[in-house]
Amino acid sequence: MATPPADEPLILISNDDGIDAPGIRALTSALDGLGQLMVVAPAQEQSAVGHAITVRLPVRARAQTLTVPSGHVEGHAVTGTPADCIKLAVTQLVPRQPDLVVSGINRGPNTAVNVIYSGTVSAATEAAILGIDAMAVSLCKWEADDAHDYEASGRFARRMAERVLSEGLPPGVLLNINVPAIDYRDIRGVAVTRQAKSRWEEAFEERKDPLQRPYYWMAGRFVNLDEGDNTDIEAVDNGYVSVTPLQLDLTAHSQLEALKKWDW
Amino acid sequence: MATPPADEPLILISNDDGIDAPGIRALTSALDGLGQLMVVAPAQEQSAVGHAITVRLPVRARAQTLTVPSGHVEGHAVTGTPADCIKLAVTQLVPRQPDLVVSGINRGPNTAVNVIYSGTVSAATEAAILGIDAMAVSLCKWEADDAHDYEASGRFARRMAERVLSEGLPPGVLLNINVPAIDYRDIRGVAVTRQAKSRWEEAFEERKDPLQRPYYWMAGRFVNLDEGDNTDIEAVDNGYVSVTPLQLDLTAHSQLEALKKWDW
Repeated sequence: MATPPADEPLILISNDDGIDAPGIRALTSALDGLGQLMVVAPAQEQSAVGHAITVRLPVRARAQTLTVPSGHVEGHAVTGTPADCIKLAVTQLVPRQPDLVVSGINRGPNTAVNVIYSGTVSAATEAAILGIDAMAVSLCKWEADDAHDYEASGRFARRMAERVLSEGLPPGVLLNINVPAIDYRDIRGVAVTRQAKSRWEEAFEERKDPLQRPYYWMAGRFVNLDEGDNTDIEAVDNGYVSVTPLQLDLTAHSQLEALKKWDW
Repeated sequence: MATPPADEPLILISNDDGIDAPGIRALTSALDGLGQLMVVAPAQEQSAVGHAITVRLPVRARAQTLTVPSGHVEGHAVTGTPADCIKLAVTQLVPRQPDLVVSGINRGPNTAVNVIYSGTVSAATEAAILGIDAMAVSLCKWEADDAHDYEASGRFARRMAERVLSEGLPPGVLLNINVPAIDYRDIRGVAVTRQAKSRWEEAFEERKDPLQRPYYWMAGRFVNLDEGDNTDIEAVDNGYVSVTPLQLDLTAHSQLEALKKWDW
């Protein structure tokens, strides 16, 4: 592959399903031609790691080339979390500061409270912390394994990457994109949404190992607690691609005045 | 120890430094007498795991009693993350829904962007997701190892637990408390604050293993990007205990209208 011109945008791609997952392959192919691509992703699946970082152990990076329609893309498999991948990529592996980080395409939705548990979103969050425009893309289908599954989400990932590259995002804002698991032609449009209120109702299964010692296996049930309008869940359920702007400040600003009145 | 009366509050204690860390011992002793206490904490240190949960492996819980001034407290060491501990405790280990979850006392500050990486905060966040009042307590000293270090933070943890038990918190709001590493009598008061904007500037050290293969070790530098007033960092730096209300919605509400105008 020829060296891209220096004025091409540099797009860093990551995920949490691991560098061998079909979603990141589909994403890399979908972004082919949009700029200089580079993939830095976990060597192994890192789902539900949240914003974990590896501070007690070293991490390693192994070169691994990805194939796209126009040729090959430089990739690195990292023995760490998605947030580790972005940190290591930006400080050690990329030739210059990326213009955009795209994380995904995740196998399964990252709507509502799942945002907090999501390694896919955390890669984009880490990029936003580091001052880089970023977006996370998830396909709302847990068992998406073949390229056809990712056709619509890949097309929307490309379109939205183009928009972010041309419009730019405010500092500290990232886009969380969820694509319904339907054919491209059946998607009704794009909806700008907010994160729905929800939780997982846990029901750990207690089992016995061969030595009769108990262990617990998480087996939760997702519960949408949000009857309001304009949520990410509602958009996806109605056949829209959901785009939720996220930000990094967790402060409950509305509670500051009330708490100041407490007798501390 | 006598069975506590049923009208006593049930307080669930967790952390991310692990059940054997001095901070959780100090916290449990500090809360002694405030209600029925129960400790469910990671069997091993889980710092910087963020809001990771264990979905691919089972978790185990091992009974481990903690000693407090009035006697003993039931404890369980869990082979998982802080968020796992809260989920497992609430669904499997506690006799009834806890009235309060207190996570800590963390060794090191959880101010500013550290909130996102913090396992200590994630235990409290998970409680808030599950509808339980919760607070995270951190001592702003990385090398806090003996009981004396935790005297002031233990006293404030108890005082603030009393306040939360009597006042209650709105649904989905938790308190993130950071205590400066100074003597109790030198603390100037309590400040209700917001999360400061900040980031870690990463500088991975590249090293060679004995087989001359490279590996990377994270060695970041904390950078406060927030010159504004009323931040958690500013409060601690000025000798105040910082109390920041946090909430679970990451939506950048201020960006919704602007994004709707994009040509999607």
